[in-house]
Amino acid sequence: MKKQFLITALITLSSFASASLVDDAKKAGLAPIPTDKTELMKLIDNSKNPITDAKVELGKALFFEPRLSKSNLISCNTCHNLAIGGVDGVSAAIGHKWTANPHHLNSPTVYNAVFMKKQFWDGREPDLEAQAQGPMQAAPEMAISKEMAVKRISSMPIYKAQFKDAFGDNNITFKKIADAIGVFERTLVTPSRFDKFLAGDEKALSKEEQEGLKTFINKGCTACHTGVGIGGGMQKFPLVKAYKYANIGDFKGDKNGMVKTPTLRNIAQTAPYFHNGAVWSLKEAVKIMGETQLGMELNDKDTKSIVTFLKALDGKMPTITYPKLPAVTADTPKPEAN
Amino acid sequence: MKKQFLITALITLSSFASASLVDDAKKAGLAPIPTDKTELMKLIDNSKNPITDAKVELGKALFFEPRLSKSNLISCNTCHNLAIGGVDGVSAAIGHKWTANPHHLNSPTVYNAVFMKKQFWDGREPDLEAQAQGPMQAAPEMAISKEMAVKRISSMPIYKAQFKDAFGDNNITFKKIADAIGVFERTLVTPSRFDKFLAGDEKALSKEEQEGLKTFINKGCTACHTGVGIGGGMQKFPLVKAYKYANIGDFKGDKNGMVKTPTLRNIAQTAPYFHNGAVWSLKEAVKIMGETQLGMELNDKDTKSIVTFLKALDGKMPTITYPKLPAVTADTPKPEAN
Repeated sequence: MKKQFLITALITLSSFASASLVDDAKKAGLAPIPTDKTELMKLIDNSKNPITDAKVELGKALFFEPRLSKSNLISCNTCHNLAIGGVDGVSAAIGHKWTANPHHLNSPTVYNAVFMKKQFWDGREPDLEAQAQGPMQAAPEMAISKEMAVKRISSMPIYKAQFKDAFGDNNITFKKIADAIGVFERTLVTPSRFDKFLAGDEKALSKEEQEGLKTFINKGCTACHTGVGIGGGMQKFPLVKAYKYANIGDFKGDKNGMVKTPTLRNIAQTAPYFHNGAVWSLKEAVKIMGETQLGMELNDKDTKSIVTFLKALDGKMPTITYPKLPAVTADTPKPEAN
Repeated sequence: MKKQFLITALITLSSFASASLVDDAKKAGLAPIPTDKTELMKLIDNSKNPITDAKVELGKALFFEPRLSKSNLISCNTCHNLAIGGVDGVSAAIGHKWTANPHHLNSPTVYNAVFMKKQFWDGREPDLEAQAQGPMQAAPEMAISKEMAVKRISSMPIYKAQFKDAFGDNNITFKKIADAIGVFERTLVTPSRFDKFLAGDEKALSKEEQEGLKTFINKGCTACHTGVGIGGGMQKFPLVKAYKYANIGDFKGDKNGMVKTPTLRNIAQTAPYFHNGAVWSLKEAVKIMGETQLGMELNDKDTKSIVTFLKALDGKMPTITYPKLPAVTADTPKPEAN
């Protein structure tokens, strides 16, 4: 009986420890992706552009639609490839005519982008619908004009019908194109074991991952990497020490030097790191964050521990059936490669 | 009763007419995609590289794998986009560093490519496995070396496991990469209403489509566009009259001036047409074929009738779940944009 008591006491203690870690994580602002659909919808829906099945289906088609680029060759998915973590796996985005992003900016992941408080590295747009309008028109990205985008899509009768289903009428506008894409992107959330842990399932994270989470909180990472997005707000970068690779690209943040904190969800899937994609190693990225943002040199043990936790943020990507897009018609404006 | 007799007689006559059209089509060499799985396997399987579920799944991943290009940005699917008929929707393929195909060659569809007797416009490769090796290495396409392709794929442990499942061992070679891609492509067949018709379902084609089929046969189109692939052999082009757009690109066929006859399956989905992608209108393409290959000026009625039939060749594309590809590791060679 004495032994039994001891075991019970140990289990209780260990439960307390874990329960307390969940509490600590919540106190640090970390929050789970809700499993309850109504709760999730509260987080991801946009009252001005409500999520509907028809809009998601249309948005998916448009997300994969290369005819939304001047050349017919680049879609949203080119730089935010849903097969490889919602990114392109290169340092600086490359677009129309093989133009590298002029500021050497890295394509952020579209997965969980709905949880970001602002969009773009300089936070210049408030939501995904507004964001989606940018890269389509940007000369070094998809390089299409609003008018051309509308002409291309309007020329295909199947889209006309899909817009009617999605928006109630078949008057296709550039805003509606971006709105549908935004809605599809809102659905790209990836619940992970960490969410289960935050929801109370203590076994969802291994002992090592829980240690990593403790280190992550105790070192102060949650000052910026917090909320459901584990990131998504604006922060001064670099904050306390110069960024080692600041010479790559000319991006200096918004007018106040603020840079959007990227999500850490699926971070192990989305190398290279930072706004200029200068760093390929997650371990190096963590060390740099310690230096530039927290003013500390993280030792190898703590760095490794944090990386172990970060890998537990790999989430379950939604299953996506690759779309069948409509055929062009005689009215469809031709691609222009130059 | 007399009226009833007349109706019966008319129905019988009309059935005869259709039955005879099926016979005519078969005599002209047209053949259906079998619905029976064993029959289909006889047509699409390669005894040297048998189709297995594990190989198809691996091949699908590799088909969508941008890390198989030097830049990390181009996959097989870039030019053979399964969302838009297995093509890229541009006249001449554009690849690494935005290089247009030096011979101004148009990307042929990968759907039903398994039914082609040879691969590439000049028929220089015998099968899809051999074909798949070409574009990966070609400097204006994916621009990767065999060694780099193998290093990239071998660096991701999930691929190691997938190759073991597919090939019995995890020794990744360039040939195996191409073999897996080839197997996936072998499965990309698209049965259409025309196949149902050929299999005896006379109602599968409308009266107008049947008229179009008659015209298609009677004018001689089936001299080249025949077999299950409705194309896929080699033919002199142009044969009897100069090709109007011969000045676009320098391609002159193989050493004997022979050019591969493209499939007409899903032809309404795969504009622009011809080896140099010079023609966007299916009607114009049919007229040009009449002139260059058959030595006749097809009138508007016959042209329209043939186009009506061709649209009945739109097939059912297989449902493809967009893959989740492995994350790069510290061992994965970095992308090179130049």
